[in-house]
Amino acid sequence: MHAVDEANQEALRRMLAADPVLIDVIPAAQAIGALKENVLLHAGPPIAWERMCGPLRGAIAGAIVFEGWAADLDEAFTSAAAGAIAFHPNHHFDAVGPMTGITTRSMPLLVVENRTFGNRAYCTINEGLGKVMRFGGNDAEVLTRLAWLRDGLAPVLAAALRAAGGIGLKSLIARGLSMGDEMHQRNVACTSLLLRELAPWLVRAGKDPDVVAQAMQFIAGNDQFFLNVAMAMGKAIMDPVRGIAGSSVVTAMSRNGTDFGIQVSGTGERWFTAPVEMPEGLYFPSFSEKDANPDMGDSTIVETIGLGGFAMAASPAVAGFVGAGSAATAAAVTKAMSEITVGENPEWTIPALDFAGVPTGIDIRLVLETGLAPTINTGIAHREPGIGQVGAGVVKAPMACFAQALSGLAQALGVA
Amino acid sequence: MHAVDEANQEALRRMLAADPVLIDVIPAAQAIGALKENVLLHAGPPIAWERMCGPLRGAIAGAIVFEGWAADLDEAFTSAAAGAIAFHPNHHFDAVGPMTGITTRSMPLLVVENRTFGNRAYCTINEGLGKVMRFGGNDAEVLTRLAWLRDGLAPVLAAALRAAGGIGLKSLIARGLSMGDEMHQRNVACTSLLLRELAPWLVRAGKDPDVVAQAMQFIAGNDQFFLNVAMAMGKAIMDPVRGIAGSSVVTAMSRNGTDFGIQVSGTGERWFTAPVEMPEGLYFPSFSEKDANPDMGDSTIVETIGLGGFAMAASPAVAGFVGAGSAATAAAVTKAMSEITVGENPEWTIPALDFAGVPTGIDIRLVLETGLAPTINTGIAHREPGIGQVGAGVVKAPMACFAQALSGLAQALGVA
Repeated sequence: MHAVDEANQEALRRMLAADPVLIDVIPAAQAIGALKENVLLHAGPPIAWERMCGPLRGAIAGAIVFEGWAADLDEAFTSAAAGAIAFHPNHHFDAVGPMTGITTRSMPLLVVENRTFGNRAYCTINEGLGKVMRFGGNDAEVLTRLAWLRDGLAPVLAAALRAAGGIGLKSLIARGLSMGDEMHQRNVACTSLLLRELAPWLVRAGKDPDVVAQAMQFIAGNDQFFLNVAMAMGKAIMDPVRGIAGSSVVTAMSRNGTDFGIQVSGTGERWFTAPVEMPEGLYFPSFSEKDANPDMGDSTIVETIGLGGFAMAASPAVAGFVGAGSAATAAAVTKAMSEITVGENPEWTIPALDFAGVPTGIDIRLVLETGLAPTINTGIAHREPGIGQVGAGVVKAPMACFAQALSGLAQALGVA
Repeated sequence: MHAVDEANQEALRRMLAADPVLIDVIPAAQAIGALKENVLLHAGPPIAWERMCGPLRGAIAGAIVFEGWAADLDEAFTSAAAGAIAFHPNHHFDAVGPMTGITTRSMPLLVVENRTFGNRAYCTINEGLGKVMRFGGNDAEVLTRLAWLRDGLAPVLAAALRAAGGIGLKSLIARGLSMGDEMHQRNVACTSLLLRELAPWLVRAGKDPDVVAQAMQFIAGNDQFFLNVAMAMGKAIMDPVRGIAGSSVVTAMSRNGTDFGIQVSGTGERWFTAPVEMPEGLYFPSFSEKDANPDMGDSTIVETIGLGGFAMAASPAVAGFVGAGSAATAAAVTKAMSEITVGENPEWTIPALDFAGVPTGIDIRLVLETGLAPTINTGIAHREPGIGQVGAGVVKAPMACFAQALSGLAQALGVA
């Protein structure tokens, strides 16, 4: 397996060499040519309407109305069930999306460029908490907010990013880790640092002070605003790691609410899937486990680059929020993840672990040898369409994905 | 000593009941009636020109030129030495100032109101790093920046704060502690959180977008911007704790570069002083211990309320910056400080200590019993006027102050 180790070192080298920069916000149809009418991208591996969970269907119906492909939600559900809409994973088009992860042609996308490798990756703008499309929300309140993101926030954010010449994310993440963020369920530091860097540019680039003030208020009012930036960054970092012959490093982990899927460098674009698990966590008042949908979203891309659950030690506050316990437990999670990774990131360090780097590059062999599944910090959606977030917790990547992937890699290497 | 314990519980109660809100920025002459021409406030206990250190003299000369009381620095030094200027401590006028702590009539002051007790406290605006008046800087660059703070930043900041109805500081500090700030040598989180809250108000209140953008850029470019807010907050919290008969709780710790002084609740406005010590720390490139001035500034007010060195465990990054070692050392410092304090602050907690509250209310009896002097995180100024900051480190409050204060308290109680 010496060749696999060498391939994995190359994978790690590419991950650490990445230089992700948030450069722009553009309409999805401009970023992704395939996003024609009646085409919709979703989180996770490929899935047909029949097997989709409640919140994913709910979000899809909302997006269909948002795009004007149906007059109302009933018509949208009927149309989707009848096969009028083509569904594809975000991951097939350089994109990612949180939870349901819906991307359609008129939605504005954050653009992160990996300047070392020249590739770009995309993610929608975070809608905030509560009843939102990523958690299956689809009513007028949800669609009105999406329209404001498109018509109000996106143009001024785009103008500011262009004027600033982009915002480098590598050092921003480094600061965020020293400020208690793990960039999955806690993004308060990075959101604040990003707004702080962008604020003067927003003022200078914005034509209408009212819109600028609203844009700032929206960002300032949403501690998870940065999550979607971190996700686009994760995708931009991992895409150049795809297709290294023999590498057993995970390039994507993702879920659609029904299946959990992973992709591995040495097996290219192939998905290895297994039924997704239920998160274990804490519920918002008046909700409980019986309301919960199984796990979903492309946001696990952040664990793939050593953040989220892998960086739990940086974020004892999030350990409490997701029900994972105390600072000591948080440190133990990060230490466990270092047993299934190829190396550490010397530029992304955790003060509480005396500045150890985050565990980087999940090796499917180590996952199977140790029996330690990747730990993911996640939001929990209601199982019915239209309701939204009901809690937050921790979920494990299913071991079956990794076993399949190892077989697939062995086939690819001609040893099976 | 039962009466002392009861008095200390009342001191702690008042500290925890405080509700500090940053409400305004106003000219010093408006805040403090005594600030006439040729009157100057400085950090620390009272001191005459003859005993002042180099950077304090340098800053005073700069302030005299800034106010137009002398044509140049030479004339300013001569004038100050000849007794033309009246010197008083900031602490005598509800105010505090970092390092040299110079306050003169035209300087804008941050206003923090303690809404529980109705009192207000003041502090100048932080100038940024490098060659600045608080570290003894006094040339044209320093004075030009001070003029911009007065004419550019202050009016727009004041308008934004008034429009926002003030910014509550209690919860902002709570968040900052979970984001790696200890609010003395590290304020990156609180600076970012403050700018994030203020940004929409700055846009709406500002008349000229260029000035608004400059204001944001100035705040965003200075990780220590929040320090002066934290100091005014500390003063606003501690002033209502003064004059509780029998209380052995420290209400102020402060240094003027020559003397370290403390005040204690049960002994009112009396200062107990001892020679100030040299910080132990790390120096910027090309500087060393031989360049260092002994410790100075009113910023120790933050340790008095449980932040700074007392909250070191929240800030492993600052432990490295001030040369205090690793995360484990940082935790040990906070634990040691809990041996000399009356209680904990349940609203200001430290995630890395499993959400223990910061050690609150320094009891001079416990300092003397344990031999543990309060630990202070501090900046280090060059000993010559006009140069500026040369490092950062840790310094101990001199034990002699506490011994004198205990005698003073015993006298006040009629037991000595």
